[in-house]
Amino acid sequence: MIPDDEFIQTKNVPGPTKEEVRCLVMCKANISSQDTVVDVGCGSGGLTLESAQRALNVIAFDKNPEAIDLTRKNLEKHGLTSKVQLLEGDALQVLEGINSFDVILVGGSSGDLPLIIKQGYEKLKENGRIVITSILLETRVEAVNAIKNIGLVPDVIEVTIAKGKITERGTMMMGRNPITIISAVKV
Amino acid sequence: MIPDDEFIQTKNVPGPTKEEVRCLVMCKANISSQDTVVDVGCGSGGLTLESAQRALNVIAFDKNPEAIDLTRKNLEKHGLTSKVQLLEGDALQVLEGINSFDVILVGGSSGDLPLIIKQGYEKLKENGRIVITSILLETRVEAVNAIKNIGLVPDVIEVTIAKGKITERGTMMMGRNPITIISAVKV
Amino acid sequence: MIPDDEFIQTKNVPGPTKEEVRCLVMCKANISSQDTVVDVGCGSGGLTLESAQRALNVIAFDKNPEAIDLTRKNLEKHGLTSKVQLLEGDALQVLEGINSFDVILVGGSSGDLPLIIKQGYEKLKENGRIVITSILLETRVEAVNAIKNIGLVPDVIEVTIAKGKITERGTMMMGRNPITIISAVKV
Amino acid sequence: MIPDDEFIQTKNVPGPTKEEVRCLVMCKANISSQDTVVDVGCGSGGLTLESAQRALNVIAFDKNPEAIDLTRKNLEKHGLTSKVQLLEGDALQVLEGINSFDVILVGGSSGDLPLIIKQGYEKLKENGRIVITSILLETRVEAVNAIKNIGLVPDVIEVTIAKGKITERGTMMMGRNPITIISAVKV
Ligand SMILES: Nc1ncnc2c1ncn2[C@@H]1O[C@H](CSCC[C@H](N)C(=O)O)[C@@H](O)[C@H]1O
Ligand SMILES: Nc1ncnc2c1ncn2[C@@H]1O[C@H](CSCC[C@H](N)C(=O)O)[C@@H](O)[C@H]1O
Ligand SMILES: Nc1ncnc2c1ncn2[C@@H]1O[C@H](CSCC[C@H](N)C(=O)O)[C@@H](O)[C@H]1O
Ligand SMILES: Nc1ncnc2c1ncn2[C@@H]1O[C@H](CSCC[C@H](N)C(=O)O)[C@@H](O)[C@H]1O
Repeated sequence: MIPDDEFIQTKNVPGPTKEEVRCLVMCKANISSQDTVVDVGCGSGGLTLESAQRALNVIAFDKNPEAIDLTRKNLEKHGLTSKVQLLEGDALQVLEGINSFDVILVGGSSGDLPLIIKQGYEKLKENGRIVITSILLETRVEAVNAIKNIGLVPDVIEVTIAKGKITERGTMMMGRNPITIISAVKV
Repeated sequence: MIPDDEFIQTKNVPGPTKEEVRCLVMCKANISSQDTVVDVGCGSGGLTLESAQRALNVIAFDKNPEAIDLTRKNLEKHGLTSKVQLLEGDALQVLEGINSFDVILVGGSSGDLPLIIKQGYEKLKENGRIVITSILLETRVEAVNAIKNIGLVPDVIEVTIAKGKITERGTMMMGRNPITIISAVKV
Repeated sequence: MIPDDEFIQTKNVPGPTKEEVRCLVMCKANISSQDTVVDVGCGSGGLTLESAQRALNVIAFDKNPEAIDLTRKNLEKHGLTSKVQLLEGDALQVLEGINSFDVILVGGSSGDLPLIIKQGYEKLKENGRIVITSILLETRVEAVNAIKNIGLVPDVIEVTIAKGKITERGTMMMGRNPITIISAVKV
Repeated sequence: MIPDDEFIQTKNVPGPTKEEVRCLVMCKANISSQDTVVDVGCGSGGLTLESAQRALNVIAFDKNPEAIDLTRKNLEKHGLTSKVQLLEGDALQVLEGINSFDVILVGGSSGDLPLIIKQGYEKLKENGRIVITSILLETRVEAVNAIKNIGLVPDVIEVTIAKGKITERGTMMMGRNPITIISAVKV
């Protein structure tokens, strides 16, 4: 995994998703070198870069132009631009114009999560994976319900990571925000 | 419990222990209105104030004079000074001069934890409680071993609290550092 | 707190709420010796007994008659029957017949949580406390929304406790189910 | 990742390490198709199988013959036997007879952790990875100290996963034991 501190960060753009959460999202997404991945709400590019290292190609978008800029900078820093198409725009509109894909990652939704999941699912290939990361109580439930509505059984994990900070006094355990990862495989 | 934001805080003094952890420490300490409580490493006074609301009297000390000042200010703010004796000094030295007590809380130890537990235990009355809070991997094990060494079975809980922040977008779950509480009852 | 293993348990009734969660619920409920407490969904009596130790009186009910039986047995075992009125029935119906109270604890709701909170809130005295414990993703959000709807700001904590099991090999950390506690004070 | 329920399990052998923890161990181990991996204490084969899917070859051993049997059965079930050498024996003795390797995973140590780390480190190639999983308070500290002693800075994460169980009433969050993963890269 790319270390957290090797991402360029800016104040106005959330992310990158922490290393350990990126790791778990990648496991759930199960990306192969033949896969096309869509990253909805790419933010700082945390999941875009990890996907680019594994997939055939990646389509990443965000409604915030600063996020697009930042993701581009991070792709350039790690030499991963060639595989990634970056688009500025709102999830539902951009998804409209995209063909089928193998994996859809949803990191941001601004209230449109049920529709994003529905629309994303329609364009998902058979055996394709949908993986949603959520930090809000409310979106967890929206994600679970939306996946049930399309007839799948959601895999739900809540992940709490504490990271050891090595100090002179000892190993201080520093908490992180818990993240919920909701995922499903299209059958 | 006293809300976290009703404590005066300063940069150089750790604490106060968060509301939920103070709550759990108080449950393990099981303080009655006849009890004398010793608070080792009082810091911002988080546990000193909670103890003062429940005990007959409290002896609190810290090796850092700024912590003593801050604890005094917090006691004054909440009208709890009368029950509390504040002493500046190192745990082992101060403990030497104290008579028996019903509860000993250990929030700071600077490497002396095994000795503090041993010495504290000797002065603890029968059925007295010892409660250690730890944020370091290493002190957890020191505390468990020291309690085993005095012939007791430690109660060990690791507590991870995430707190909901109500925002326009929803309830954002904010992580906190995990805390380990090690306790025992003198038999 | 009453140790977990001092509760009689049966297969068909959930609970008791674990010691550490009972402790946190009691802190949020802030019960005084003048208070009337209502316990909705008393289950094994975990919260009923803790409330009985602190309140003036407790009204506890459950729609499952086995829960009423079990709570009675646990109250008898701990000599706490005198303060507690036990009622079999569904939350909404029983609440109808109750006068005002200082604290309402909600441990079970079977889909009626929003209505229970609304109805409970109406009968809650000024400065009264409402405390909901939830193990389901969905009820957490229902509780937060219902509390917002009555014009209060919910306090939301997610609690994850691991308990140390002392073995010959060392201290094995045993996980527990995370519990979310949603609470509010009537203003 | 291989789903948890696709492993054969037996009563006398611990494991398999849960899917999400295997995922994180694999990220920290960063196994490439040219790597030789050593799995100390293979148990049910949880990490052996994951390594076999990624590495050039794997040497897995356990002091418990039942663990060797079980790991063999799990390798056969998933068609992964060809890459794996299985050895029964105690960690320190078996390590003695092994040449250099790229990754060492330590899942069991029976008190020998500091020596296993020391001896494993000596045989680790440059840029090789050492990854220890621990469920005991004590081994976490042993692992951190042993890695400091060989002059490296340990990466320490404590992982708490709750898994959603989809029920008629809603998504019940089921806790798991917290696991600590301590790792380092040889420089
Ligand atoms: N409806 C929508 N359409 C497109 N982008 C959206 C969106 N709602 C939210 N977003 C974007 O989603 C992002 C969520 S933060 C994502 C972080 C990212 N996974 C990383 O690892 O760096 C934000 O940048 C936000 O602008
Ligand atoms: N050996 C020792 N003797 C006295 N105080 C000590 C000590 N080692 C550490 N301390 C003190 O222990 C404190 C730990 S922080 C304690 C926070 C406190 N429980 C609160 O809720 O506010 C620090 O202020 C530190 O100065
Ligand atoms: N609508 C409703 N009315 C009354 N009881 C209800 C209810 N919905 C669920 N319950 C009850 O709520 C209980 C939840 S389990 C409660 C455990 C309890 N707090 C303890 O510590 O022991 C169950 O016994 C269930 O029968
Ligand atoms: N000193 C030692 N040498 C070899 N094996 C050891 C050992 N100490 C403990 N073990 C083994 O370590 C194992 C730990 S359980 C390992 C689980 C495994 N990672 C999985 O995912 O399936 C046990 O099977 C135990 O027999």
